[in-house]
Order: sequence, then C-alpha cells, then structure tokens
Amino acid sequence: MASPVVASDEMVAVGARARAAALAMARVDGPTKDAALAAIHDALTAAKDEILAANNADKAAAAGHVAAGGLPAATAKRLELGGAKFGALLDGVASVRRLADPVGTVSMATRLDEGLDLYRVACPIGVIAVVFEARPEAAVQIASLAVKSANAVILKGGKEAEQSNAVLVRAIRAGLTAAHFPVDAVQLVATRGEVAQLLSLTNHIDLVIPRGSNALVKYITDNTKIPVMGHADGLCAVYVDAAADADKAVSIVVDAKAQYPSVCNATETVLVHAGVADALLPRLAAGLAAAGVDVRADERAYAALTAPGADHGAAVTRATAADWGTEFLELTVALGVVDSLDAAVDHINAHGSHHTDAIVTEDDAAAAAFLARVDSAGVFHNASTRFADGFRYGFGAEVGVSTHRTHARGPVGLEGLMIYKYRLYGRGHTVAPYATGDKSFAHTPLPLVDPHVGGRGKANGVAND
Amino acid sequence: MASPVVASDEMVAVGARARAAALAMARVDGPTKDAALAAIHDALTAAKDEILAANNADKAAAAGHVAAGGLPAATAKRLELGGAKFGALLDGVASVRRLADPVGTVSMATRLDEGLDLYRVACPIGVIAVVFEARPEAAVQIASLAVKSANAVILKGGKEAEQSNAVLVRAIRAGLTAAHFPVDAVQLVATRGEVAQLLSLTNHIDLVIPRGSNALVKYITDNTKIPVMGHADGLCAVYVDAAADADKAVSIVVDAKAQYPSVCNATETVLVHAGVADALLPRLAAGLAAAGVDVRADERAYAALTAPGADHGAAVTRATAADWGTEFLELTVALGVVDSLDAAVDHINAHGSHHTDAIVTEDDAAAAAFLARVDSAGVFHNASTRFADGFRYGFGAEVGVSTHRTHARGPVGLEGLMIYKYRLYGRGHTVAPYATGDKSFAHTPLPLVDPHVGGRGKANGVAND
Repeated sequence: MASPVVASDEMVAVGARARAAALAMARVDGPTKDAALAAIHDALTAAKDEILAANNADKAAAAGHVAAGGLPAATAKRLELGGAKFGALLDGVASVRRLADPVGTVSMATRLDEGLDLYRVACPIGVIAVVFEARPEAAVQIASLAVKSANAVILKGGKEAEQSNAVLVRAIRAGLTAAHFPVDAVQLVATRGEVAQLLSLTNHIDLVIPRGSNALVKYITDNTKIPVMGHADGLCAVYVDAAADADKAVSIVVDAKAQYPSVCNATETVLVHAGVADALLPRLAAGLAAAGVDVRADERAYAALTAPGADHGAAVTRATAADWGTEFLELTVALGVVDSLDAAVDHINAHGSHHTDAIVTEDDAAAAAFLARVDSAGVFHNASTRFADGFRYGFGAEVGVSTHRTHARGPVGLEGLMIYKYRLYGRGHTVAPYATGDKSFAHTPLPLVDPHVGGRGKANGVAND
Repeated sequence: MASPVVASDEMVAVGARARAAALAMARVDGPTKDAALAAIHDALTAAKDEILAANNADKAAAAGHVAAGGLPAATAKRLELGGAKFGALLDGVASVRRLADPVGTVSMATRLDEGLDLYRVACPIGVIAVVFEARPEAAVQIASLAVKSANAVILKGGKEAEQSNAVLVRAIRAGLTAAHFPVDAVQLVATRGEVAQLLSLTNHIDLVIPRGSNALVKYITDNTKIPVMGHADGLCAVYVDAAADADKAVSIVVDAKAQYPSVCNATETVLVHAGVADALLPRLAAGLAAAGVDVRADERAYAALTAPGADHGAAVTRATAADWGTEFLELTVALGVVDSLDAAVDHINAHGSHHTDAIVTEDDAAAAAFLARVDSAGVFHNASTRFADGFRYGFGAEVGVSTHRTHARGPVGLEGLMIYKYRLYGRGHTVAPYATGDKSFAHTPLPLVDPHVGGRGKANGVAND
C-alpha cells in the first residue's frame, strides 16, 4: 500500500456532489430514469459532430504516439467512435433503457407478527467510481447503467481518450439536465493523479469498478480500501475427462481457446485424462493447429505429440512451469495430461483464477463432482468457457466479470450495482413485549411484493428506493 | 494504513489449511454437516468440566485485572460460560443445526438455448476470519455457522478468554474429527500480533468479520484489503412526524432508546416535527424520564422543555454539536426539532450511521418518502429501531449487522456467508455459431431447481457445492 493520498478539495467536492446526486436519485421512479436515458440518447445524437471531432483529435494524437513508438497500435484502434461504432453506442443506451428496472425488487418478505411486516427491497449501492482505459464508448455504457440503476457514477477515463470522453460526458450531462435529472449522477474526472485521490474517498465512494488491463485492476485493488468489483486474471481451463465425447472435446477446446483469444473467458489451459490421452491428444492438437494455436505441452503430452508418426500439424513445445499460471490472451495453449478428475480439479483450483472452467464428459457423476469441487465463478459441463459473459447469460448489459467471493461473482449485470434495504412496517410496535415473552414472533413468509408502494414497489407516483 | 505486515510461515500455513478445508467442504452434503454439528454438540457436552475449569482460570485472571484496574468489570463479566450459559451455548449449536441448509439454493435459472441451461447456485464464500472480543461463546456460535455454511473459519479470540477459547475449539475440533469432517474447518489463532498477520492473508482469507467494539471494527477496516463485513457505529434515529400518533411516538421512542441502550440498534437521536413539538416534546420527555433517560436538547427543544410550567421530570441539558454524531450506548438521547420531513431525512443521512432509522406517522405518503429517502440498511414505519436484529428478522442466527453497501446490508444471517457460482450444462455447445449469427440465444427462465443434482441441488448422494 502506498503512503496515504490526500484528496484535493476539488476531488472531495466531486465525491460530495456524487453522494448528493445518489441521495436525490433515491426518489426517482423507473419512467423518470427511462426518460433521462432517452434524453441522453437525444443529446448524444445532437452532439455527434462535436463528439467525432473530439474523437478525431484523440485519434490523431494517438497516431502520433504510435508512430513515435509510445503507444501500442491496438490501444489507438480502441479509440474509434466513428462509423458503425457511433450507432452501436446509441443502441447501447436504448438497450439499457429497455432493461427491467432493478430498483424495488423484493427479495424477501416476512410477517414478523400481526401488523409487523418486513420487506427486503433492492436499492442502488450509492456512488460508484469506474476507472476505464482507452475505449471512450465505455463512458456512455457506464453512464447508462448508472442512470438505470440510480447510482451516481464518477468516471475516470484513459488519457488517450481524454477529448472524446470530455465531449461525451458533456453531452450526457446535457441530456440529464434536459430531463431534469440529477446532473451529478454522471461526473468525469480527467487529470493525472486523480485516480489515487478517487481511491482515497472511502466516505464518498461505495464501490470501485476497474475496466481495463490486469495492471490497472491490480493497481486499483492494491491501492484502495473501497470495495472493488472486477477481475485481474482470466485463467480458464477445460478438462477433457476419461468419458469425454471426442468430437465435443475438440470443438469445445478449439472454441474456448481460439474463437476470440484476447478475452478473459478464453481458455488458457487444457487438461486431458491419461486414459484417453493417446487417442485424444492428436485430435485436439490437430483442431488447435487448424485454428492457428501453438501448443505448450507437459512431458506426457509432449511425448505423445512428438512420437514417431504423430500427425497433427501443431507447433508443440515443452511447457514451462510459468505456462500453467499464464493468461496468454493469444493463440497459445498449455496442454497437460492428468491421472484423474481429482488431479484436474486440484490443478485448476491451484493454478486457475477462479473465473470459468469446463469439463467435457458423458459421465454425469464426473460432471457433478467437477462442478461441485472446482472453486470458480463459472463451472461448465460440455460447454465452452467463452459462454461466461453477461450478454450470453441474458443480463442485457454487463458491468464486468468478478472473480471475488463477496457481493457478486462471475459476469455481473445491473443486479451487481444493487444492494438492498429492509423496510419494516409496524403499528407502533415495540421490542419490549417480545423481550418479556408477552408476545412472540410469527416469522411467516409474505408474497414478494411490498403492498405499501404498489406493484414491485414502484407505482402510483410514490417515491421509491 | 500501517506499513505492510508479513505473515509468519506458521500463519500462512493456517491460511493454507483453511483453504484446503474449504475446498474439501465443497463436497459435503447437508446431512454430513448436520452430523458434524451433532458431534460438536456431543464433544462440548463431554468436555464440559474441562471447559468450565479453563473458564474459571480465565475468570480468575480477569478478576485480578479488574481489581488492579486493568480491565473493566463488564468485560470480565462477559467471560462467563458456567450456569445457564453452558446450556445456552449447546442450544445454539442445536439451533444452527436445525436451520435450512443455505448451500445449493438456486437463485437464477435460464435456458440460454436448446440444451444449454444456466443455474446460479448458492455456495460458501470460502475462508472467513472472525476476530472477536471477550465472549468465548462466540467461538462456538461462529464455528457452528461455519460448519452449516461449509465455510472454513479462522477464529481470533480476545486475550481475556484465551484458555476458554482454546478448550472450546479443541472440543469443537474433536467433534469434527469424530464426524470425519474436515477438521481445519475451524482453527483458532491466539497469540498477540496475529490479527495483523491474519489481515495480510489476502490470498487465503476471503472475508473478515469483526465482532466487538467500535475500536476493533475500525482497526480491522483500516488495516486490511480483505473485504470486511460489519459495522463500526450504530447511530439510529427516530423521526416523529407532524402526523404522528402521540401514543405510538412515546412508546416507540422510549423502547428504541431505553429497552436495551447498549446495543447498536438502540436509538441515539430523536427528531420531532416543529408542528407537533409543543404538544409532543413534554410527553416524549416524560416517557424518557420515566425510563431514566437524560435528554440533550437542541435550542428549540430546550426552550420548550424548560419553559415555565414544563412538567415532565426529565433532566434536560443543551445538546452540543458532537451529540448529533455520538453513539451514547447509554440512557442519554439527543432530541431536536426539525421543520420538515426533508430536514429530518437530511439530518439522518448526514449524521447517522446508515444502520436503522424510523418514522412515526399516520401519513402513509410521509412514511413512503422517509423509507425511500433515508439511506440506511433499515427504514422503519411505526416500529422501534430495536427490531433490527437477525433473530427478530427470522434468520435464526446472526452473523452480525452490516452498514456496508456491498454484499450484505443490515442484520446478516447465514445467507451473508454465502456467494454463488454459475453452473452451465451444455451438450458440446460452442460460442462460434452464436457469434456468426447461425444460432441465437433464447434466454427463457427455468424453474429454480437444478435437475442435475436433485431437489434444491443436494440429494442422491451426489457431491454438491
């Protein structure tokens, strides 16, 4: 942990404005939030020329840095907001607007006693800081999710997208103003050093979400006491069991590794049961080779794949110890042989990042054991690890993927931006008669609807939380 | 943040054993956990003499410290395990055993496509460290909750209860061994300096729960990057609205303040609407005085309560600015007058600790506004803040009360020791055809039961998670 950072008065004021906006949003109902999202959509549309001009300036500056060797070309490419990107950005706002309102859902309801009813009701977390890197469209996506969930958000974008982000957030705030929505629901901080200051605002910020490289996530996790939601590594594995169907094994392994290798749910490690290694390793290697994947093999896999007569077309080298802990994020896979399902589970629990791991098997008992014992956010049977994604899970929007073990785990949708509060409705009830034994608790379940505020807790123009 | 603490090899080994036990417990079903709890009950019963001898030694040492002025008498009193306490301790184990198994509950189920079904299933968090102070029965309660939830727990008790804790945990571990349950599900660390080391084990410990004084909670929150569940302050308020029923107001305020003043859900601040202040303040003061409560009044309340002819019997002094932020934990209350519900809400959001706050009113719209806008874990209408408690909420056991805004908020039962994992069952499904548009997702809801593992995900002898 670095020495304590003291936030500037200016940064504290950003935090205080965010908290005030969050409190003001507690009174806002679903239609009002959707109207604000429509106004953001309109404001972004109206500001298109200005946004693209700022984006061109960012791109030009980035091109200069790329030419000078100061910026990877891939990073510069992520800045693009023009062409189809702009339409997709607007569609993103509209699709968040169409999601169900996450606020007000009742997840528990109990009659404690006659006339004393308890409801656990979803409400926003409060103030969320999101630190993101090159992609400026993230500002729009996060702002939309914040409005929909009634959380205030403080955005800190990457330096490369500084002008794009500034114009985007100005348009978003113009939309909020036009909709008479709390404008400080979305704020942008831009200067250097502000990340460390943001991370020190433990009283003003309730959750930090890093979106970007492993290095960014690790920096943030190491430098704040505010809860962090995200994941540093995505080291996923596929275990090909003794009872695996060979065709399923090959197609799942190739999809999991090669369909889109630079993402966190791509597979980095493949483990094959010794009983089927001789039969399956050459087929797996051939499939991987056809997809352009290089293989780093453990001793047994190397021996099998380099034996005389082995014919699979794959480039096979010996795996180093480090390969089992490496998130390659490219067309490289570590391939090993294990003697049992237990050995596969132990390997994955020890070397993986608890993100998503799959078993390929026709043996349901083996699948059940693997799914029970692998300690990961996603445990899959006969499916590619690439399915671990908020959109594929049906969440409509993805906040990120969490490998933490509290609050939210795995792909996180709008629900991950929510917490709950307990509403208790009495008729003058006091604890004393329950303490003396004159009264006792009933604790009977109630329907999951709070009748005091209408359907799903948000109707009749009554303020909701 | 203090300078980095390096855990000893011994402490790292404690963490590693806890992780191994947590992984082993992923295979354990509900009846096995209940058998372990029965074995703990038996082992504690068998060790009663030894436990009480150790407890007597702790009490004797504490009595010496009290006599020497080195320990508050109240702290020494909390050490007691004899008499009715021992039976209550055993009853606690039995009552945790009777709770529903929290593992395996399905909270989301979606058919992503034909033959591709997703389930979100409750599972243990993993390894939990609990740091507690004088009461040795906490060791038993926490160990029981850990076994029931299949989390491994590392206990760090207070120095005063060192011998009691050692014998209790030895008996608990004997019970686990007799039941062939992973014995390192429950470990005790005892020596000084080990708290700081525990708090540094970010790779081995997933959650820290402090149970004790505000100072303990603050120390822990300030000295770890592991998620912490708990609360430092319990600064609760009751707002008496313009439309309050006077009898309800008096009985709720008196109960909330005086029924048991030393706990976190006792009320510290009472705010009265100006429109009813003249009529209600004397009645509130009389009720509080009858319960032995001293009143610290703001200017308007002071004027009303000290006016010529005021007859309520309460000791009234002027409130200082600090009183509005003080958790008195004794028979003292801060009493003020506000001009509106909005002013009451603003006061509570600014000065309270986001624990539990109540409104007394016959106006349902006012109640709805208060419950929506007050940013606290519990928001109550016409009920005492003292109801904010896991047992009163019907949770059967209480892990603690959280004033955090992630993971769990308010009174926390067994559910707060759980997270979830996603199980995906396919038939060889790959992402590629969905990426190309050859296939599309259905995202239809499924019943909240995973048929692959039987009812509620835990039957048929199949390992569950």
